[in-house]
Amino acid sequence: MTYVASHIHAAAPQADIDLKETVASYMSASLITLRPGMSVGRARGHILSQLHENDVPAQVFVTDDSGFLHGRLSLKALLTEQDEQRLVSTMMLAPDYSVEPGQLRRDIAPELTEKTLDIVPVVRGGKLVGALYEREIAALIRDEGTDDAQRQGASLPLDTPYLSTSPWGLWKKRLPWLLLLFAAEAYTSTILQVFEEQLEAVIALAFFIPLLIGTGGNSGTQITSTLVRAMAVGEVGLRNLGTVLRKEVTTSFMIALAIGMVGLLRAWMLGVGHEVAIVVCLTLFAITVWSAIVSSIIPMLLKKMRIDPAVVSAPFIATFIDGTGLVIYFNIAKLVITDLA
Amino acid sequence: MTYVASHIHAAAPQADIDLKETVASYMSASLITLRPGMSVGRARGHILSQLHENDVPAQVFVTDDSGFLHGRLSLKALLTEQDEQRLVSTMMLAPDYSVEPGQLRRDIAPELTEKTLDIVPVVRGGKLVGALYEREIAALIRDEGTDDAQRQGASLPLDTPYLSTSPWGLWKKRLPWLLLLFAAEAYTSTILQVFEEQLEAVIALAFFIPLLIGTGGNSGTQITSTLVRAMAVGEVGLRNLGTVLRKEVTTSFMIALAIGMVGLLRAWMLGVGHEVAIVVCLTLFAITVWSAIVSSIIPMLLKKMRIDPAVVSAPFIATFIDGTGLVIYFNIAKLVITDLA
Repeated sequence: MTYVASHIHAAAPQADIDLKETVASYMSASLITLRPGMSVGRARGHILSQLHENDVPAQVFVTDDSGFLHGRLSLKALLTEQDEQRLVSTMMLAPDYSVEPGQLRRDIAPELTEKTLDIVPVVRGGKLVGALYEREIAALIRDEGTDDAQRQGASLPLDTPYLSTSPWGLWKKRLPWLLLLFAAEAYTSTILQVFEEQLEAVIALAFFIPLLIGTGGNSGTQITSTLVRAMAVGEVGLRNLGTVLRKEVTTSFMIALAIGMVGLLRAWMLGVGHEVAIVVCLTLFAITVWSAIVSSIIPMLLKKMRIDPAVVSAPFIATFIDGTGLVIYFNIAKLVITDLA
Repeated sequence: MTYVASHIHAAAPQADIDLKETVASYMSASLITLRPGMSVGRARGHILSQLHENDVPAQVFVTDDSGFLHGRLSLKALLTEQDEQRLVSTMMLAPDYSVEPGQLRRDIAPELTEKTLDIVPVVRGGKLVGALYEREIAALIRDEGTDDAQRQGASLPLDTPYLSTSPWGLWKKRLPWLLLLFAAEAYTSTILQVFEEQLEAVIALAFFIPLLIGTGGNSGTQITSTLVRAMAVGEVGLRNLGTVLRKEVTTSFMIALAIGMVGLLRAWMLGVGHEVAIVVCLTLFAITVWSAIVSSIIPMLLKKMRIDPAVVSAPFIATFIDGTGLVIYFNIAKLVITDLA
């Protein structure tokens, strides 16, 4: 067990500071740079001789002999300038957006997704060390999306493409989260054991356990998956916490009303008596709203703690709601059902 | 109930043929085209006058007067050609990859993601009607990723960005799937009612219900989320069904062994007797393997039926495993526990 336990412990946070997830592992070192003192004519020739067939950047960078980044110049401006003798330094603009080689992929992916940049300079201590062309930017955004999708499925992101990952490799990425969730979910057994007396008195209460906790998990998952994605593409940030909470609580009330009614109908169909039916209806309402509050706050909280919110996967929410949902269920049962009072 | 029922019915498949999800709604009509009879000198002037500041395509298209697409020419070739009198027709290459305005976003997103293209011609009946520049390609891939993320959370994709969607709008996108899953999950109550006798005889069986079905759902979710993403980026296709199944079944055996052992330990800790402990251990093993088979086959099956595999969300898998998992559980219980025989 020692191996497994330490593995779980190391798993979730450690994977995030992997070297392959930094800008350095994506940037291209192939750069076409101009010097401030070049004439337009010379700069044009320099660029055309080095241009790639498949990747034509809309901007080129201007550096001095030591590699310090001085500015940027649009290819269009350079190609259409009439005065061949004009100096690059008189045309260039200040560099606007740049990244550092050590920056984490997930920290810059939202901005890159939002801005749709063509080329981004990679700068260390003022010096230009590389660039992210559209190809690199696309790869970075795609890989971050793939990692997010895997995290959302409660697995550690794979180091290699799926088809070239061995079963043993998959096992190592999946088991830590599965055991962690198992450990968290194990408390549901303890909770049910605590309410053994109530269960024995009204065995019909057991019939609705999967339905109630399942519905709570599902409605929570709907919220986290939308929120985590909106955060990944830079649409929602910590600043929106109030808006998100208001929106989600309002929505969940309307959803809880509908689901509560349907639940009442379902319990009535099973013929479990009106007391149990009312407990099921009230629990569905309470679990749905509770799940909405949890699911909107946790991703934001993780973001604030600088943990990738994508770890708030469906299984994560489902596990959390399973335990707390059962407590809600049996407490409502004790309040409503006269035999249990 | 009529409204709700018809809404559910229409929901899942209909949303996929929305107009906003076609190439037409993304393509840019702003095109710089050359004629085959143009000289390099004239073509160069024509292009430089129309070039955008922020979007410089690596390729330009060659069409005739009626707009039929004849070829493509790399910007580099055009700008570096020494002979100003040379005709465009002698330099152009055959158009390789093109899309049609009516094509669905999700059908071309995997290819666009894999190829990292710079500009893609949009062609209807041989005529060039528009183009996808890097900006449009990025938006298309991003939106498809967002829709997938929302589908993976068992919600219909939103029509508007999250922050500008009203609670009422969220309600309409979420309730259909939630009700569909509720209806599917409702059978778990029937299954438990069928096994009421066994439950009353050994109430401890109830304690493990959330843990067993939860673990089955979690291990299935790990598989579908990885697979659905690998299919979305074009890494895995129907051709890989055999490989995927072998890989997943092998992995799930190794995972099932580990989880089964931990489950035995957990049941022993609760002091529920060795018979129930063995049932829990065997059920965990069986559910994990069963869940792996289901989770690898269903996304492929949906792809084959031309339904977006992203609808195989965590809640979808969890719901499916909840019902079938309970049947596995109580059948193993009847085999193992002498009191139930």
